[in-house]
Amino acid sequence: MQTTKLCKGVRLTEFFMPTLRNAPSDAKIVSHQLMLRAGMIRQESSGIYSWLPLGYRILTKISEIISQEQNKIGACEMLMPTIQSADLWKKSGRYDDYGQEMLRINDRHNQEMLFGPTNEEMITDIFANFAQSYKDLPKNIFQIQWKFRDEIRPRFGVMRGREFLMKDGYGFAIDEEQHKKIYNKIFVSYLRTFARLGVKAIPMQADTGPIGGKLSHEFIILADTGESEIFCDKEVIDLDILQEKIDYRGDLEPIVNKWTEKYASTDEMFVEQEWAKVPDTNKIATRGIEVGHIFYFGTKYSEPLGLKVADKDGSLKPLHMGSYGIGVSRVFAGIIEACHDEKGIVFPSSVAPFDVGLVNVSLKDENCTKTCDEYYETLQNNDIEVAYDDRDIGAGAKFSDMELIGLPWVIVVGKKSIEKGLVELKNRTTGQTQDLSFEQAINIVKGK
Amino acid sequence: MQTTKLCKGVRLTEFFMPTLRNAPSDAKIVSHQLMLRAGMIRQESSGIYSWLPLGYRILTKISEIISQEQNKIGACEMLMPTIQSADLWKKSGRYDDYGQEMLRINDRHNQEMLFGPTNEEMITDIFANFAQSYKDLPKNIFQIQWKFRDEIRPRFGVMRGREFLMKDGYGFAIDEEQHKKIYNKIFVSYLRTFARLGVKAIPMQADTGPIGGKLSHEFIILADTGESEIFCDKEVIDLDILQEKIDYRGDLEPIVNKWTEKYASTDEMFVEQEWAKVPDTNKIATRGIEVGHIFYFGTKYSEPLGLKVADKDGSLKPLHMGSYGIGVSRVFAGIIEACHDEKGIVFPSSVAPFDVGLVNVSLKDENCTKTCDEYYETLQNNDIEVAYDDRDIGAGAKFSDMELIGLPWVIVVGKKSIEKGLVELKNRTTGQTQDLSFEQAINIVKGK
Repeated sequence: MQTTKLCKGVRLTEFFMPTLRNAPSDAKIVSHQLMLRAGMIRQESSGIYSWLPLGYRILTKISEIISQEQNKIGACEMLMPTIQSADLWKKSGRYDDYGQEMLRINDRHNQEMLFGPTNEEMITDIFANFAQSYKDLPKNIFQIQWKFRDEIRPRFGVMRGREFLMKDGYGFAIDEEQHKKIYNKIFVSYLRTFARLGVKAIPMQADTGPIGGKLSHEFIILADTGESEIFCDKEVIDLDILQEKIDYRGDLEPIVNKWTEKYASTDEMFVEQEWAKVPDTNKIATRGIEVGHIFYFGTKYSEPLGLKVADKDGSLKPLHMGSYGIGVSRVFAGIIEACHDEKGIVFPSSVAPFDVGLVNVSLKDENCTKTCDEYYETLQNNDIEVAYDDRDIGAGAKFSDMELIGLPWVIVVGKKSIEKGLVELKNRTTGQTQDLSFEQAINIVKGK
Repeated sequence: MQTTKLCKGVRLTEFFMPTLRNAPSDAKIVSHQLMLRAGMIRQESSGIYSWLPLGYRILTKISEIISQEQNKIGACEMLMPTIQSADLWKKSGRYDDYGQEMLRINDRHNQEMLFGPTNEEMITDIFANFAQSYKDLPKNIFQIQWKFRDEIRPRFGVMRGREFLMKDGYGFAIDEEQHKKIYNKIFVSYLRTFARLGVKAIPMQADTGPIGGKLSHEFIILADTGESEIFCDKEVIDLDILQEKIDYRGDLEPIVNKWTEKYASTDEMFVEQEWAKVPDTNKIATRGIEVGHIFYFGTKYSEPLGLKVADKDGSLKPLHMGSYGIGVSRVFAGIIEACHDEKGIVFPSSVAPFDVGLVNVSLKDENCTKTCDEYYETLQNNDIEVAYDDRDIGAGAKFSDMELIGLPWVIVVGKKSIEKGLVELKNRTTGQTQDLSFEQAINIVKGK
């Protein structure tokens, strides 16, 4: 799908895509290795990465899908600054709690500042300034923002980095019942978000600590390389949210129930007796990567930060809040953990950096290059995003770069095929190739 | 124009848009006052702002236009981290030079880090790792990224903030001649960018210091409230880049010449003798706001940071570089300085947060509300971005909010007008109203 910020096509002679033959030896997990090899990221300091053009493009697509699904539930996107004053954190009591993971800074006037690891305090303060009564509720606000946690041992590339991109959302309601509706909307929108990103993310009950109740879930991508053990009923995995009819203004409880009634649990929350009830043929014990976490925490921040509004009867009530997060840079790595083979990445089409690669294997043949230049324009005019390999390097290197970066389709054009009026179309997932007319190839790539 | 990240429509009951009747007294310039009043930004610390949903939406549109015009010249978008290691800056010699404006940080392992105020050092280092020969050149890379400069007295809202959004681009070439082509492409793309943003930005010769030559220009928006005096020939202002046929693969020198041959200068670079040559009837002495700066600095960073590549003859040559900046959050304020009246902002349509406001003035009338709900859907289905005021507040407050936030058009729907089968369409720029059928109103808003 064409997006407006991103260009429709690039020529690899102009594109900055420094692919590597081998990943550095300190890259331990496959997503880290492949992201380095594909020229998507570059480490600048421990746990701190540059997003090179190819990586930035994918990160942008992931962010756009997240925003789109948030928009559908009426959530408002905004952006808070990365640098925060320490004052709010002292009020909430978390300034001391956070310890060395918080990056603390003194500015030139010796004010205590910090690079935000999360934003409950700031959003509560912003909202307190605005909300006066129950009429201003419910509200659902989110941002996609760079955060910093000074991990003692950053590792696994962007999976556990120090500077990382996160979608953090905050819900505000007059009471628990109203908040439950926000919670359900976000629950369903998260199912849709991850499904659109091309991965299976299973919601699993998370610890609610002193808050109590059941309104806390983690969303876990299944991947053999995941950090935590998970146990789940096969029937949850087989559900498909994109097939559901969803009315966000209606009652979402039945959908939430459908996705939570079958057993699915991290090892942390594992309950032997419940697991025993799952039919043996349905038992799936594997590993997973946490990519989302939603939780309702009631008045935990609104009480200490003084966020109260007038209810219908005029009495002042503390707001009921919840936090809703997706690890954006982390889900990028998670997608690669779930979608790769021995040749490289096999991107789901929704987040593939381009729909198709166009490979000119007879660069020195004037006719072939002229034809490729025309195909490059035609593909873009057909709303197909294309990476055009017009580099003066061997065909083998071109093919392996295309396989490495995981484009769903590759169109190969050479002197000989042109003479026959054909191109070769290659499917990344199956590896199958077909000789076709260029028009037929376009139709297949467009999914017609 | 519809963008994919942003939603097509919002209901103001769901949208978080805390407008204010009066701006705080410490807001001295009109853009700062209006951005606060329109609920676009909120100050979190001195010179540090949150971008509330309305402001974030506009900032996103501005960024998208910048990216699109960069894409057209084959520039590659990427993203560097905000936190950098001090090491590179020590190598380039700027670590000490930068003084207290640089926000310095020690991490938990006591490594010296900093919040990047700019990225010449890091991009040079990234590129040095990749570029091996003249074949990898020329390259044009940019990012739109949050930066931090610890100004001693931040003021004028986001015009001179501490945490600010900047587009910084970097060009790499084998020699000055090749770099000149990059420079010209960016020069022309900047003219197009600012024209699309709805403002007149005039290129003016800037100081090149020890580098010498003429390859440095500032782009200045004309506004009475600008920080610097400017002097220019009326003929430059009358030029319109959007009317030019541009072939970025061709020779751009004639276009650059056309935009630089008439006199235009800041007071810093003012030359009395040149100004005297401008016909008196063409002399325009006014004020301006710098929103862009491009400059070629040759081997200034490539020499100390050791960025050399093999030329055609095999000899190692230091790269010729240039920096290309646009103050993104600053241009937001600049647009408002240039486009407002006594009632509020009058946004150019390209950056208006929505194309149209839909105001329901008979909220309690079931038929009117049902009709408005339908209109809200119909507008979105026609690719018109709409802010639907369905709030339970007085009509006067609704109208003044619409005027304040500067939407190009407002459609007013009430019990009486519906009975006549009409809506009222109001033009923000002219203030004129028309009674029309809803279909006619749609056509006018779409520019048919």
